[in-house]
Amino acid sequence: MDLQERAAQNLKKLREQKPLVHNITNFVVMNYTANALLAAGASPVMAHAPNEVEEMVSFAGALVLNIGTLTDDWVGSMVSAGRKATDLQTPIILDPVGSGATRLRTSAAKEIIDKTRLSVIRGNASEVLSLRDESSTTKGVDSIHSVADAADSARALAGELQTVLAITGPTDLVTDGTRVIRVRNGHPLMGSVTGTGCTATAIIGAFLAVDSDPLQATATALAYFGLAGEVASKSASAPGSFMIAVLDALYTITPEQLKNGGQYDG
Amino acid sequence: MDLQERAAQNLKKLREQKPLVHNITNFVVMNYTANALLAAGASPVMAHAPNEVEEMVSFAGALVLNIGTLTDDWVGSMVSAGRKATDLQTPIILDPVGSGATRLRTSAAKEIIDKTRLSVIRGNASEVLSLRDESSTTKGVDSIHSVADAADSARALAGELQTVLAITGPTDLVTDGTRVIRVRNGHPLMGSVTGTGCTATAIIGAFLAVDSDPLQATATALAYFGLAGEVASKSASAPGSFMIAVLDALYTITPEQLKNGGQYDG
Amino acid sequence: MDLQERAAQNLKKLREQKPLVHNITNFVVMNYTANALLAAGASPVMAHAPNEVEEMVSFAGALVLNIGTLTDDWVGSMVSAGRKATDLQTPIILDPVGSGATRLRTSAAKEIIDKTRLSVIRGNASEVLSLRDESSTTKGVDSIHSVADAADSARALAGELQTVLAITGPTDLVTDGTRVIRVRNGHPLMGSVTGTGCTATAIIGAFLAVDSDPLQATATALAYFGLAGEVASKSASAPGSFMIAVLDALYTITPEQLKNGGQYDG
Repeated sequence: MDLQERAAQNLKKLREQKPLVHNITNFVVMNYTANALLAAGASPVMAHAPNEVEEMVSFAGALVLNIGTLTDDWVGSMVSAGRKATDLQTPIILDPVGSGATRLRTSAAKEIIDKTRLSVIRGNASEVLSLRDESSTTKGVDSIHSVADAADSARALAGELQTVLAITGPTDLVTDGTRVIRVRNGHPLMGSVTGTGCTATAIIGAFLAVDSDPLQATATALAYFGLAGEVASKSASAPGSFMIAVLDALYTITPEQLKNGGQYDG
Repeated sequence: MDLQERAAQNLKKLREQKPLVHNITNFVVMNYTANALLAAGASPVMAHAPNEVEEMVSFAGALVLNIGTLTDDWVGSMVSAGRKATDLQTPIILDPVGSGATRLRTSAAKEIIDKTRLSVIRGNASEVLSLRDESSTTKGVDSIHSVADAADSARALAGELQTVLAITGPTDLVTDGTRVIRVRNGHPLMGSVTGTGCTATAIIGAFLAVDSDPLQATATALAYFGLAGEVASKSASAPGSFMIAVLDALYTITPEQLKNGGQYDG
Repeated sequence: MDLQERAAQNLKKLREQKPLVHNITNFVVMNYTANALLAAGASPVMAHAPNEVEEMVSFAGALVLNIGTLTDDWVGSMVSAGRKATDLQTPIILDPVGSGATRLRTSAAKEIIDKTRLSVIRGNASEVLSLRDESSTTKGVDSIHSVADAADSARALAGELQTVLAITGPTDLVTDGTRVIRVRNGHPLMGSVTGTGCTATAIIGAFLAVDSDPLQATATALAYFGLAGEVASKSASAPGSFMIAVLDALYTITPEQLKNGGQYDG
């Protein structure tokens, strides 16, 4: 099946199955990502208590871990939930918000990577490439001068970490260490709304709950979210009304529209 | 006075008195419920510090406790605030988000019920019916096969707990153990916006601050919030624009419109 | 340069330089203020972990401290971040939400004032005037019967605290203890949206990052935010759509529009 068909099928399944997506995420985006997941067709739950997360994740179709507005106690909850999800073979996606910017964020992201089995990591280029081991043979961020360089680095890192990596930007790059898919959907206004990256991560989480191939789940989810931005831009030209129109578009886009609207390379 | 008149009077009082409504609520809905309370005419405050909640609630016309995104330390603050409110005879409403789903949520809800004097509990059927004692003679969730069954269970539980129970859904059911009122306002899109249940709870809190009869305060608040959904649906057909239109409708609905638009049975 | 020109220049710089604005703020407004900062042109980051805030603020052009939804551990993070910002001569603005209402808020605000070097404090009249020392010679809140009285009290307090004070309301008053500027922009609907005061504070933070004169940064930021409310009111007449239209206006207002639209006295 090609990605166009797969995307349509994933969105259809999402709306039929309404999987529970357990989020341990940051305070800034909790409301917006919950609304995005609901609009897409999933059932979001936010829960972070150390004495609750293992029980909660056991009901979930996917676990979303996001390290924005992080504190140490939240790292513990993310690891507990992640270990339980790993045991249950429930897919996990990590959003390493701010990894590379502060020691807390970088070390928390690495701890989660070490202690859980992640299906996907999604971030911008500097966040994702900050996850390399010091002794990594992949190139440093400073050495990246082209999209081709970023793709090489990401592919090598995905192989090392044995996970799918998604580096999002004007064009999204998705790789499992072998295959590389580029997704060209999206709109520049998405950069003027807080938490669109975090929301992309949550939407990927929802797709992971209905598609057992993390690479294709990720690429099709990013096409869907990017398409929502494109649709929103037809009725909104400034960030406030745009962010609301994105929620509307996540709800109104049909599997058929997604099949026709997804733009993939590779 | 009938409920139509009472609803109009409550909304009028709310806008005249602008009561302070103290919320200890979850991170997902804090912004939306604060905006809903403001739009309705109340003065919301969110405060959860253990060394502040007793002082804060002493200024309030009502206390709203909501156990979404709960951790143990928040339970302590809810109990402290609830005890103080009980002493002051300030009405309290509990939203047992996720009770029945995890042990933490169920035990927290029961602890709050045990240690405070609640005026109202609002949730969906499984949340509310999870609050029964193990030895309760009311029927188990599994045994509920009809709306009539749910009504019987809720009425029995309300009698046991000596509080008003509101089970919201396509039709809302409100009971104090003796009387049962059904409220038929609302719109299906409310289920596609996160925190509409929590917001209904907060609006009931505001009505409790101006109406000393918890049963009527609850029924009229639910009619008002449901009517806001109906009004919103006239200008919005997808969840993003709908959730914004609901805030607008809470602001624009007049007491006269509420008097004419409320749909009550029983 | 007059304030009209200065405002235009500040907005232009903000959009060119996109300064990082580090916020340690309350849960209710995190999403909205992040979106407002992004719409204005700044790069917001929210981070409150005690073991991260010093590192994070070292990258920032300004620090915004806001004591809504406060707990003791957050005060510690605010002081740590504030001390580091003081060392680095990074401008700091404090929003003393609820100071004067509870002991926790009042003492936290005073502790932050004592331990850091603030560029600006913004609040409503009772919040700002609650910051006076018991032995202060400035008049008590109860003694304020006129706008002129408030101005006198604020000017005296600004001198004592050696900071700019902004008291916002229908007309905003800004003083450094010597000069007094009044800003007349704004719209009544801003009072029906939660966190507009907090958002004004965050926008001032962004202007502090591009204007080394805190008095002028504050006055021009308040004119800009108030003008956004005026622009929003042309397309929205209820709080939900209005709060979205304010975000749109923050994005679309040009430096030239701000130059022409700012209303200053004194």
